Amino acid sequence: MNMEKYIKKLETLKLSDMYENDFLLTWEKSDDEIQAVFTVADALRQLRTNNVSARIFDSGLAVSLFRDNSTRTRFSFSSAANLLGLAVQDLDEGKSQIAHGETVRETANMVSFMADVIGIRDDMYIGKGNTYMREVAGAVQQGYEDGVLEQRPTLVNLQCDIDHPTQSMADMLHIIHRFGGAENLRGKKIAMSWAYSPSYGKPLSVPQGVIGLMTRFGMDVCLAHPEGYEVMGDTMEVAAKNAAKSGGTFTKTNNMAEAFKDADLVYPKSWASYAAMEKRTVLYGNGDDAGIKALEKELLAQNANHKDWACTEDMMKLTKGGDALYLHCLPADITGVSCGEGEVDASVFNKYREPLYKQAGFKPYIIAAMMFLAKCKDPAKMLKVLADRGHARWLE
Amino acid sequence: MNMEKYIKKLETLKLSDMYENDFLLTWEKSDDEIQAVFTVADALRQLRTNNVSARIFDSGLAVSLFRDNSTRTRFSFSSAANLLGLAVQDLDEGKSQIAHGETVRETANMVSFMADVIGIRDDMYIGKGNTYMREVAGAVQQGYEDGVLEQRPTLVNLQCDIDHPTQSMADMLHIIHRFGGAENLRGKKIAMSWAYSPSYGKPLSVPQGVIGLMTRFGMDVCLAHPEGYEVMGDTMEVAAKNAAKSGGTFTKTNNMAEAFKDADLVYPKSWASYAAMEKRTVLYGNGDDAGIKALEKELLAQNANHKDWACTEDMMKLTKGGDALYLHCLPADITGVSCGEGEVDASVFNKYREPLYKQAGFKPYIIAAMMFLAKCKDPAKMLKVLADRGHARWLE
Amino acid sequence: MNMEKYIKKLETLKLSDMYENDFLLTWEKSDDEIQAVFTVADALRQLRTNNVSARIFDSGLAVSLFRDNSTRTRFSFSSAANLLGLAVQDLDEGKSQIAHGETVRETANMVSFMADVIGIRDDMYIGKGNTYMREVAGAVQQGYEDGVLEQRPTLVNLQCDIDHPTQSMADMLHIIHRFGGAENLRGKKIAMSWAYSPSYGKPLSVPQGVIGLMTRFGMDVCLAHPEGYEVMGDTMEVAAKNAAKSGGTFTKTNNMAEAFKDADLVYPKSWASYAAMEKRTVLYGNGDDAGIKALEKELLAQNANHKDWACTEDMMKLTKGGDALYLHCLPADITGVSCGEGEVDASVFNKYREPLYKQAGFKPYIIAAMMFLAKCKDPAKMLKVLADRGHARWLE
Repeated sequence: MNMEKYIKKLETLKLSDMYENDFLLTWEKSDDEIQAVFTVADALRQLRTNNVSARIFDSGLAVSLFRDNSTRTRFSFSSAANLLGLAVQDLDEGKSQIAHGETVRETANMVSFMADVIGIRDDMYIGKGNTYMREVAGAVQQGYEDGVLEQRPTLVNLQCDIDHPTQSMADMLHIIHRFGGAENLRGKKIAMSWAYSPSYGKPLSVPQGVIGLMTRFGMDVCLAHPEGYEVMGDTMEVAAKNAAKSGGTFTKTNNMAEAFKDADLVYPKSWASYAAMEKRTVLYGNGDDAGIKALEKELLAQNANHKDWACTEDMMKLTKGGDALYLHCLPADITGVSCGEGEVDASVFNKYREPLYKQAGFKPYIIAAMMFLAKCKDPAKMLKVLADRGHARWLE
Repeated sequence: MNMEKYIKKLETLKLSDMYENDFLLTWEKSDDEIQAVFTVADALRQLRTNNVSARIFDSGLAVSLFRDNSTRTRFSFSSAANLLGLAVQDLDEGKSQIAHGETVRETANMVSFMADVIGIRDDMYIGKGNTYMREVAGAVQQGYEDGVLEQRPTLVNLQCDIDHPTQSMADMLHIIHRFGGAENLRGKKIAMSWAYSPSYGKPLSVPQGVIGLMTRFGMDVCLAHPEGYEVMGDTMEVAAKNAAKSGGTFTKTNNMAEAFKDADLVYPKSWASYAAMEKRTVLYGNGDDAGIKALEKELLAQNANHKDWACTEDMMKLTKGGDALYLHCLPADITGVSCGEGEVDASVFNKYREPLYKQAGFKPYIIAAMMFLAKCKDPAKMLKVLADRGHARWLE
Repeated sequence: MNMEKYIKKLETLKLSDMYENDFLLTWEKSDDEIQAVFTVADALRQLRTNNVSARIFDSGLAVSLFRDNSTRTRFSFSSAANLLGLAVQDLDEGKSQIAHGETVRETANMVSFMADVIGIRDDMYIGKGNTYMREVAGAVQQGYEDGVLEQRPTLVNLQCDIDHPTQSMADMLHIIHRFGGAENLRGKKIAMSWAYSPSYGKPLSVPQGVIGLMTRFGMDVCLAHPEGYEVMGDTMEVAAKNAAKSGGTFTKTNNMAEAFKDADLVYPKSWASYAAMEKRTVLYGNGDDAGIKALEKELLAQNANHKDWACTEDMMKLTKGGDALYLHCLPADITGVSCGEGEVDASVFNKYREPLYKQAGFKPYIIAAMMFLAKCKDPAKMLKVLADRGHARWLE
């Protein structure tokens, strides 16, 4: 097993700000830090593939708080925590009512006496999820400084209203491996496109996370959606700035075919519009159930106007060589399989099933890398320690 | 501590097919494989009793999916996973909606990136549970071959519509210990009998599992139930074939007293009839709630015609010497205790409480043995490694 | 790290009765045993602060059964179990129906085959919680003696109808640290006072636990509440006896101001009256939902007559130097924050937030100490073993 390249790579990166820090938005992280996450993720996978334990904790808790249903992110978080030696303790809202303000501060401290990591998914309401995470982060930071907590638990954003960093980073690492290195992505075109789904209200954090991250690699990132499905303006600005800096481009279109034209990668996926989600957040705040139901109906009708936004075989033919890499965060709404009409044709999905599954397989390692970099003062040295220790994960 | 006999025993058995394989039906396993499970279960218990850690995993996940309520199987699975060093992560359907087809394939892979074991209980619908398990097994096998999964998680059937192997194996190991060895069971009579319960729809997998396994040891296995409470024909065939091969017998009667007559062991337990369960599965498939309620009422009325099918003191007097070993998978419906009229008299139950609890106590070790044999290339050698390592489970 | 003082202290204490024993009521424990819990709690914290692993288990289960919602106790229990190397397995009643009698005995054994610890919270009904815990303790003791269980799991009372020992012990250790040692508490006055809350039916176990424990340290413990909010008579007797023996006092008043006058510590907290809770238990037993609703209404109305029982700034001015240490088990009903009118003014709460959080932070260590003392034959020696081993909890 050759860990040398990963260790050497890490040694060239400035990572001091990651130690004891959170991972909330990719665009708050430097290029070095983003690269470090990819490097550590690959290194941890190599350790595990070689049956070398990556446990840096003999005991400790990873607290998970999911405010939205989740299978893959839940298992990715559990896997990552377990890989590093932490036990997961769910903070189940059904069991333990959480609100805002004083309660957030208090609960954050109460669950953190022996917590090394806190993972939060809170993606339902615009302006809420990321704000909540920062409240929690502030609370545990204060608790740590006051001597209430003996360690400062690290926050990992498992999806908020703004970004979905563990998803976009997993997507990106998949792409990097697929194209044989980040250096080969320069000038490649990716279409981050809206697609029709018979459900409504899917979070915006995936497209926002993708344009906010993938514009950093010199790619031509094209965001496509029907009128009325705009994403948050702030994330558009981030994408534009990133593209300018990285030597790539960031464009927007209301034409799916235009986005797919000559694309090397396509990411067709449904989401709700920012405006609609804001409206819903207000209705929710007012406890206006009738209003929410009416909005839901209206949004489904709006969606239904755009059934032609689907990743069909014909649409795929427009892409570079007709075989762009198809990406999705899963589960996809597959026409004739999981729904009548949906985001993608079954034949397209089937062709790409294996890479799609592999794409998802990066997430546990990405999360583990985020934890690792926040918990190891000298990550390069720690990788060396683990490799040299050579403790078997599994006595096969 | 003398592990020698277990190790020597294992060395004589052909176990190569167990490695990286699943445990779904006892009758798919060779006699050597069945013996190996008993041997490893005993060995793991001896290790634990001697405070020697049996951890073969430094980290790793055991995924549990319970589609039916469970206390004892849930805790047995947790205990087994923990004994070997795995952390349990529940795949809660309430939390994470699972269906069939594409979704099964996808979910199976999504939860398995770092999963070493998957335990499934799915016993509610005829033709569904075991089929589902095979879908999952196929999916993770494909995922492993495609390089999606770095390891191939092992499936353990924690109860399906056809078999309940962890139960019947635990029952059997209990009997073996009770009678001082499998060789002493030849010619012993066991009555696997239906018994009245005021509830309805109990799975058939216990009686099916029992007749499918216990006919392999040269015993006289007598299946008794009122007319209309037939078990699956396939499992009857398995039992008949086993009996012929093992030199035992497999008989059927609609007379409880006949079954109890001179029995060395009795296993009186309620179950639903196969025909009724098939009907229910169809109604469920059609979403026919009214039909299900009507069927439920009908089945309870049918049950009530057979209140005389109870393990009373008088019935026990018919058994060999009046003191056959009473078996049950628990919880039993005890007359005057957990219900008005039920499967067993309180006085009979009370007399056998201690052996009943011991019977249940084999299950964690049986499950651990199934995991162990699927995860260790050379199980005999691994037992030796663990014994020699002598790592304390508990610094007392 | 100097563990010497803790080890020396433990060596002077008679602890033989703690081994393999439960922790159900503080007043069943000798002064030596109470001191041992404080000493081990401090020692375990020092180990953890110095990044030394306190794992005494390589594998093993800690079973948790919460019959009432809980965040902080749940996390404290998880943290304690994890610190010592145990995995938590919830016995969720929703998932696994538990009743009394035969079922308790059976379930207690079924979940304990590999359980080292069982933590139970059952505080809702007078006469039930503690009784239930003793049923469980009796069942596992019997199971152990019968050879059903290979180890005797230890019970920890995580709150019952009578006592809340992990809370009162954490409160007490906080006070000891705050005042620089138990010897400095002699003659200090603590007001354990009822306070108004807009909710109803809060358990009595906190005030009962506090007067039952704090009277053992030579303090002047004053219990204050409006007429009609009496606590269990038995716990009053315990408090009186303790005070007489320790050279402190135990007084009762129906005047909050009188209790606060010159107090060094105040613990203003809402609870339901014993009589009301008894009534509710009977109604619940009879399945009288209408009666329960009527009682609830009546109790809320009764509460509302005592809104002046609040820990206001003015009330605090009455205390010694105007700055008694404010205590609460959290969450508090804070006026204008978590409710309109409640137990404490926001300004008072804010002033004491940091010590309040620290108070809560003792609970995981108190629980771990209770487990440790029940699981280590020679706790002093075990602390030395852990310190000498010096195994890092976290490879930082």
